[in-house]
Amino acid sequence: MKLLRVGPVGQERAVVLDAAGDLRDIGEPEIDGAFLASGGVARVRDALERGDLPVVDAEGLRIGAPIARPGKIVCIGLNYSDHAAESGADVPAEPVVFMKAANTMIGPYDEVLVPRDSVKTDWEVELAIVIGQEARYLSSREEALGVIAGYAISNDVSEREFQLERGGQWDKGKSCETFNPLGPWLVTADEVGDPQSLSLRLWVNGELRQDGGTKNMIFDVAEIVRYLSQFMVLEPGDVINTGTPAGVAMGMPGQPYLRAGDVMELEIERLGRQRQTVGQA
Amino acid sequence: MKLLRVGPVGQERAVVLDAAGDLRDIGEPEIDGAFLASGGVARVRDALERGDLPVVDAEGLRIGAPIARPGKIVCIGLNYSDHAAESGADVPAEPVVFMKAANTMIGPYDEVLVPRDSVKTDWEVELAIVIGQEARYLSSREEALGVIAGYAISNDVSEREFQLERGGQWDKGKSCETFNPLGPWLVTADEVGDPQSLSLRLWVNGELRQDGGTKNMIFDVAEIVRYLSQFMVLEPGDVINTGTPAGVAMGMPGQPYLRAGDVMELEIERLGRQRQTVGQA
Repeated sequence: MKLLRVGPVGQERAVVLDAAGDLRDIGEPEIDGAFLASGGVARVRDALERGDLPVVDAEGLRIGAPIARPGKIVCIGLNYSDHAAESGADVPAEPVVFMKAANTMIGPYDEVLVPRDSVKTDWEVELAIVIGQEARYLSSREEALGVIAGYAISNDVSEREFQLERGGQWDKGKSCETFNPLGPWLVTADEVGDPQSLSLRLWVNGELRQDGGTKNMIFDVAEIVRYLSQFMVLEPGDVINTGTPAGVAMGMPGQPYLRAGDVMELEIERLGRQRQTVGQA
Repeated sequence: MKLLRVGPVGQERAVVLDAAGDLRDIGEPEIDGAFLASGGVARVRDALERGDLPVVDAEGLRIGAPIARPGKIVCIGLNYSDHAAESGADVPAEPVVFMKAANTMIGPYDEVLVPRDSVKTDWEVELAIVIGQEARYLSSREEALGVIAGYAISNDVSEREFQLERGGQWDKGKSCETFNPLGPWLVTADEVGDPQSLSLRLWVNGELRQDGGTKNMIFDVAEIVRYLSQFMVLEPGDVINTGTPAGVAMGMPGQPYLRAGDVMELEIERLGRQRQTVGQA
């Protein structure tokens, strides 16, 4: 099932994309942690099967992020060996964890802003996990897969100078305004199937820059969720960005960082496509 | 003015401590970003002066964190030269920024849990800034001081092995459950006066471990807020932990990390006192 939120910023309406390609109102106020934790996905599925959900006229409506603002966005760094290599980093022995401010989350077609005084704004196509149940100290991969509500495309936009050359910790280059386009859909875990069999691609101005597959993750989805739950309490609605494959600007000849007017397009198999134009803060 | 929240976890009631030492219901549903951004502090002050607020019988009530869960908790690392030295780190050239999961926030007398498989859980008394207005790209110290709602005591509990020896970024050792006691009060900025003139102390089992002053911050409160606003959008209700002075377990002979049964007491001038018993997750 593909859940999404349509409408102006801050006034998004929760809808589901049905098999005929129509958007239907899900009859719930939000797609958020409370919705996910209370069996909202099953309620929508049942209502959809009964034919109870009215079609929404979404002509011209903006598509927002597919979930309301999460309690946290947790990120896994250097989780593809080819990206670790292009970053000049060793393959990590255990997951590298950092965080992004949750207010970086925007819709999949919203404008991404190059921060003021930035010259190294970069892209990162990533598989995002959306958590569906509270989780602490999970003891197995099966338990970990059981707390996942679904998946979405995430663009973990990063400012490399802020991240790597301005003292200490990566978060400084990860939390700028508009730095986390998410969506278009929250695709439920049952519909995605094996999360390690998805291709990921990203284009800038029509040129293919990233072309990877989740099969090449160093730490897979089940392990990431199990691992993180040893260090923090995961909550319904939390988002986990699982790392990016090779092909970011930082690793390319000439380092062609983003400039106002550039266009990013992202695609993950079974999760749809994103497209962002770059502006200047 | 001293604002606080009393009652069971998740059912806290917003009150103000009056000059006579009584708690009075503030007549607002929450102390949160919406309250702060909409002039809530001025409304409560006016109502208090008019004598409109009813006394609350708080006998035996738990004290919660003085604000509802924030959108983010941002932390400044190594912001006292004596703590940088005891950590074996250079004095930073610009603020070191990291993040803590917002669901680490607990009340000032709640139990702090040593995580499973932890042997290096440590304390950090810190001055916390609570943001009162949305802020991006602030251009001066005056603007920065203008977006601060007030201050509180924060215990930036840290697991040093998770933070420093498990690969990469500090956030991994900062986001464990219960790792951010806050309060008892949100003391409004006008009542605190100069935030660089406050003494900070922390005791473990009655022994003084940290004894510092905010005058020794490397980057002061105004600079921290101005600086952070260049890298992220600060929002009403956000919490900023401004760093800790020397005296943490990591820097002491024998490294006496926290164990179940230990008692931490924290005090910051004009901001009250905290006391936490340590338990085991």
